[in-house]
Amino acid sequence: MPAKDIFHNAVKYALEKDGWLITEDPLYLDYGGVEMYIDLGAEKLIAAERDGNKIAVEIKSFISSSTISEFHTALGQFINYRTALSQKEPERQLYLAVPAITYETFFKLELVKIVIQLQNMKLLIYDPELEVIEQWIS
Amino acid sequence: MPAKDIFHNAVKYALEKDGWLITEDPLYLDYGGVEMYIDLGAEKLIAAERDGNKIAVEIKSFISSSTISEFHTALGQFINYRTALSQKEPERQLYLAVPAITYETFFKLELVKIVIQLQNMKLLIYDPELEVIEQWIS
Repeated sequence: MPAKDIFHNAVKYALEKDGWLITEDPLYLDYGGVEMYIDLGAEKLIAAERDGNKIAVEIKSFISSSTISEFHTALGQFINYRTALSQKEPERQLYLAVPAITYETFFKLELVKIVIQLQNMKLLIYDPELEVIEQWIS
Repeated sequence: MPAKDIFHNAVKYALEKDGWLITEDPLYLDYGGVEMYIDLGAEKLIAAERDGNKIAVEIKSFISSSTISEFHTALGQFINYRTALSQKEPERQLYLAVPAITYETFFKLELVKIVIQLQNMKLLIYDPELEVIEQWIS
């Protein structure tokens, strides 16, 4: 199984353990002339629901050799996805799923903290091995 | 010469024709624990100055097979670079350089227009063949 799918499935199982119902996997998102699901290189989105709350989750592994490159792309995708969601399905909240090890290191850097705050990014911190959610940050 | 360098040089010459002095090429940008110039895959930034105005330019070719993928990355880089600049050198304005053909097509899509507006992105539209700046959009 490609590494990307391992992380994707880890988040999916973690959400299920946490009581979420996976409603779309992958979530196909298109809006305003852009079919974002045709971006095959990108990680796929998951849609989930619990107690009437609807979320979409962009899953990142951060296993590439350049964490900053991966962060550039994750951030751009997040903003494009969130913008599309806000127009199509404004009640659905977008989360970026980040492995705990990456959150404890790269995400503690000053620049990354400022960007997360300025852009109001919601994070879901997960343990890819135990397949559990460690923290929700809104 | 790699295609990326052709676009990089086209913008550089276009700026010079427009009366700008290139002060750093590439502009090395690091802030808050992140050395963004080590992201070798990314296009390099140029710093320029004219009549006391200082700019940094992120140059995009949009020649890859997936324009949306390239836009995700361009957007993420732009926000990270702008955030770093705002802390280090707040008077320097960041522009995203976009080829005219891409601006007339992909950048007219509704999603892209909304994102550009919401994120207050400044654009510099250039003709890569004639090596001239067609439009500044702030």
